[in-house]
Amino acid sequence: MRLYPDPTASAVIEALAQTLGVRPGQVTLGNGSDEILAFCFQALCPNGVAFPDISYGFYPVYAQLYQVDIHTIPLRDDFTLAVEDYAGLGRTIVFANPNAPTGLALSRAQIATMLETNPGSLVIVDEAYIDFGAESAIPLLEQYDNLMVVGTFSKSRAMAGARLGYAVASEALIADLNLIKYSFNPYNLNRMTLAAGAAVLEDASYFEACAQKIINTRIIAKDKLEKSGYYCTDSMANFIFVSHPEYEAEVLQGRLRAEGILVRWFNQSRIKNWLRITIGTETQMDELVKIMDSITNK
Amino acid sequence: MRLYPDPTASAVIEALAQTLGVRPGQVTLGNGSDEILAFCFQALCPNGVAFPDISYGFYPVYAQLYQVDIHTIPLRDDFTLAVEDYAGLGRTIVFANPNAPTGLALSRAQIATMLETNPGSLVIVDEAYIDFGAESAIPLLEQYDNLMVVGTFSKSRAMAGARLGYAVASEALIADLNLIKYSFNPYNLNRMTLAAGAAVLEDASYFEACAQKIINTRIIAKDKLEKSGYYCTDSMANFIFVSHPEYEAEVLQGRLRAEGILVRWFNQSRIKNWLRITIGTETQMDELVKIMDSITNK
Repeated sequence: MRLYPDPTASAVIEALAQTLGVRPGQVTLGNGSDEILAFCFQALCPNGVAFPDISYGFYPVYAQLYQVDIHTIPLRDDFTLAVEDYAGLGRTIVFANPNAPTGLALSRAQIATMLETNPGSLVIVDEAYIDFGAESAIPLLEQYDNLMVVGTFSKSRAMAGARLGYAVASEALIADLNLIKYSFNPYNLNRMTLAAGAAVLEDASYFEACAQKIINTRIIAKDKLEKSGYYCTDSMANFIFVSHPEYEAEVLQGRLRAEGILVRWFNQSRIKNWLRITIGTETQMDELVKIMDSITNK
Repeated sequence: MRLYPDPTASAVIEALAQTLGVRPGQVTLGNGSDEILAFCFQALCPNGVAFPDISYGFYPVYAQLYQVDIHTIPLRDDFTLAVEDYAGLGRTIVFANPNAPTGLALSRAQIATMLETNPGSLVIVDEAYIDFGAESAIPLLEQYDNLMVVGTFSKSRAMAGARLGYAVASEALIADLNLIKYSFNPYNLNRMTLAAGAAVLEDASYFEACAQKIINTRIIAKDKLEKSGYYCTDSMANFIFVSHPEYEAEVLQGRLRAEGILVRWFNQSRIKNWLRITIGTETQMDELVKIMDSITNK
């Protein structure tokens, strides 16, 4: 602990590159994907940025911190992201896939269309929730040099407490990001996080089994809630996005809190009747479903 | 590890505030003091920055990253920082105390003079090496609201691998720094570093004994090197800054490297005949002194 960590983080980068099927020079690590995203807003949005009106709440915060011009594009009424709304924008595009808090995902083919309709502009796909059923855009890197994929060890790898995120892109884009890293904080990853990151990449089958368990629990919870009269989006994330035609989401949140269950309600007009509910253990979800059913089926 | 860390880092901040004799609201933590310093350059240098020509090499890097105008002030010929050279600059001042790589320190009274001759301008004292014999400026916070002290757990607390730094200032200045932190990376400290940081603050006497051992080893090494014909500055840090009237520092560095000892030579005109040598164990320093003596006293 008394020695500085490896600033190149080569052990984790080599293991992660192998896991993702890319070259080590196509990967850099951050103190959480938040640090990576901040670097992107600071350095890679020369002509401003575009992102959906409903997405990760930090995109507008980063844009304001680095004084990047914002172009917000509304999701369609069903919360889908329409790729044609993003064609030829002439600015950096960033979106979460699957999106948060909706859970909806674009297919790899749709992302390819976005890349093709934005030649010369960077498209950043924030894949924080990618391992719960959606298609990663990483294979598109072979074909498109205007793509950057951002990921995190906080969700499917259950290491939110360790702070470890990554970016995958062309070697040239990663070199640009590293210029910022080495001008800001060369030792941005501590030794313990690097050790944990290398260790977690060693057991791919355990990782896949954990992600699959969350997917299965999500499918069962969604099915039961729909049978109780709730509507759920087709979430590909480790959470569901839930609404009820008769009960206000804020009221539902309060009822659940009274039972000791915390779910997320957003005080944002378009989604104010929706709850984001993280998938817990099967037992936790059974308890949640039981309470939500009892509220609406008295 | 699966849960996000405490973004307020309250356990470490409370323990550190108690250790330093300030209020918790006067302290914030960074992913190393590098992150804190970067935030200062980004947010707290509205009229540019001034720093010595010989000091921490990252100050000009941060200034360029955030496009802050730089005013460089040469140290005097004997490498001392003359406080009168900094009077009434009308811009943020930052310097390391003790300075690196010279090891020379200003007294608390000299820093008070700098604060008094720069009313309305922030003075950032980078105390990375403060625990090896120099006077901390922290007691001056009671009297001066234009002072910020930056510190690190990487040197005297031997936790460079964990990445933990801090800033101490008025509550208002710390609130400003926290605005940047919460817009950049709210979870900037991971759980393991926070646990290590809280633990290391529990044993003040062990900490003081370790710092004192390094001071003693420094005094002995300096004394022996001076007897071998070397000149050493009056370093108050965990390193010595060494020159020889007849042997070029770059040559000395090469000779030491050939013996398996790495010391730092700077390719910078004013200090190109000097070496920065970190204090190791007594045994390591004895070995170093023996080799350096054999080079000059053939």
